[in-house]
Amino acid sequence: MNISINTTLVKRKTTASSKKTAPEKKRPKILVCNDDGIDAEGLDALAKAMKKIGEVTVVAPLTHQSGMGHAMTLGKPLRINKWHKYKKFFGYAVNGTPVDCVKTAMTQILKHQKPDLMVSGINYGSNTAINVLYSGTIGAAIEASFFGVPSIAFSLTTYENADFTYAAKFAQKLAREVLKHGLPAETLLTVNIPNLPEKEIKGVMITSQGKSKWEEEMVERNDTYGQPYYWLRGVMTLYDGSLEADEYAIRHGYVSITPISYDLTNYRFMETLRQWNVKK
Amino acid sequence: MNISINTTLVKRKTTASSKKTAPEKKRPKILVCNDDGIDAEGLDALAKAMKKIGEVTVVAPLTHQSGMGHAMTLGKPLRINKWHKYKKFFGYAVNGTPVDCVKTAMTQILKHQKPDLMVSGINYGSNTAINVLYSGTIGAAIEASFFGVPSIAFSLTTYENADFTYAAKFAQKLAREVLKHGLPAETLLTVNIPNLPEKEIKGVMITSQGKSKWEEEMVERNDTYGQPYYWLRGVMTLYDGSLEADEYAIRHGYVSITPISYDLTNYRFMETLRQWNVKK
Repeated sequence: MNISINTTLVKRKTTASSKKTAPEKKRPKILVCNDDGIDAEGLDALAKAMKKIGEVTVVAPLTHQSGMGHAMTLGKPLRINKWHKYKKFFGYAVNGTPVDCVKTAMTQILKHQKPDLMVSGINYGSNTAINVLYSGTIGAAIEASFFGVPSIAFSLTTYENADFTYAAKFAQKLAREVLKHGLPAETLLTVNIPNLPEKEIKGVMITSQGKSKWEEEMVERNDTYGQPYYWLRGVMTLYDGSLEADEYAIRHGYVSITPISYDLTNYRFMETLRQWNVKK
Repeated sequence: MNISINTTLVKRKTTASSKKTAPEKKRPKILVCNDDGIDAEGLDALAKAMKKIGEVTVVAPLTHQSGMGHAMTLGKPLRINKWHKYKKFFGYAVNGTPVDCVKTAMTQILKHQKPDLMVSGINYGSNTAINVLYSGTIGAAIEASFFGVPSIAFSLTTYENADFTYAAKFAQKLAREVLKHGLPAETLLTVNIPNLPEKEIKGVMITSQGKSKWEEEMVERNDTYGQPYYWLRGVMTLYDGSLEADEYAIRHGYVSITPISYDLTNYRFMETLRQWNVKK
């Protein structure tokens, strides 16, 4: 680990490449986060892909934060660490959750200077169906959208033998589209990419958050003192039969793009609820 | 603290009161959780209120878990502790998040025997607008709905001088309604109750998740070694002007009931997205 405490603000610099594109075509500012931590391979791949299209700031958790959803840190202080990779400054590592990273990036590192785009990932493992709620990768992207920044969460559908080549290429392509079109209010994208070589990818599906579910159990074991402890184990079971559902699409070799909104209101049910006996 | 390790399963018993209601009218089974922890006053108030209408199992975090959203524990084992209050068995304390508590309750304590209702809270502090995403109280209720259990999250709009009297009474009333009507698929209720005496409550509004936002900053301080640390500070700023938005309703003395869904798909945006250049 190569950590040093840092509080210096990120100052915008004219890079060599942008100097060439006279009369000063502004490169988009891109914030890059993840939940697997600052040292994750997928973060590196995503940051590299984004550097080809914009000016990148990386702010990621110091440690692994999978399954942290939209958790934020309230009861303890955060530290901002300058992180180096390949002997060069890479980004900022925050000792908190993915959501903490975005809050720290927006308020302290970027001083409320909104980036043009925020991307999160590339996550190890798919984030389909109810994993949308568990995912720290998506949590970070939702948090960026709270700040009004268009955001995309990227996940690769494997935990092992990950090859981020095509995922990074696709991330770059989709990032350009979001920079071009923007996103509706309160809306972000979550993208799942099969861990396949490009030639085996069947296509791209626009999907909904599917109905697939974890079948879970708690495994009981005894510790070395004979006391029981519990560890969750689960299998994602497919409950969809259409390429328009995220989990089904990725299992059939398609990239899945799901637009999600952080307004969780079930508007259709409001009128029914008004008929209930829920007076004071 | 009165903790002892426990792995005994909860076995259904015929209580004295249900014996009286021949020919055996079954009392509903109610799971009670929270995010403020097993020792919180609001949990006590909610459990007491629920015991008047059903058979209660309390499973709550061992420590304070505010702001944990839908976080779950992946990387370390969980323990289940038997917790006593007023010299009687009160419930189970789990050393994890609110979501962990629900998973532990459903898989290990209740052994997949679905309760008829799950209630979460009563939380210290309102859970309106984007707090729906940050809230561990709501996280627990969403998790219960993953298991197909109708669920309600309750929050009292204060951190200080909390009076749970009216909130507990209203919780009981709404719980009976949910037990009677059920809830639509993938839908749960989140309820915010002003910290007022009953006579000052103006009424009950069915609301949407409002657009109010945190205006946040990171406060920088130096530790005793001169090293900087950061602590988030924020103020919830009202961006709604109607009693049909949660934060506006509670600020005007109304109980707010918001139906929320855990399907986050922005269906309306899917067709637009299909027109983008997002081919393979």
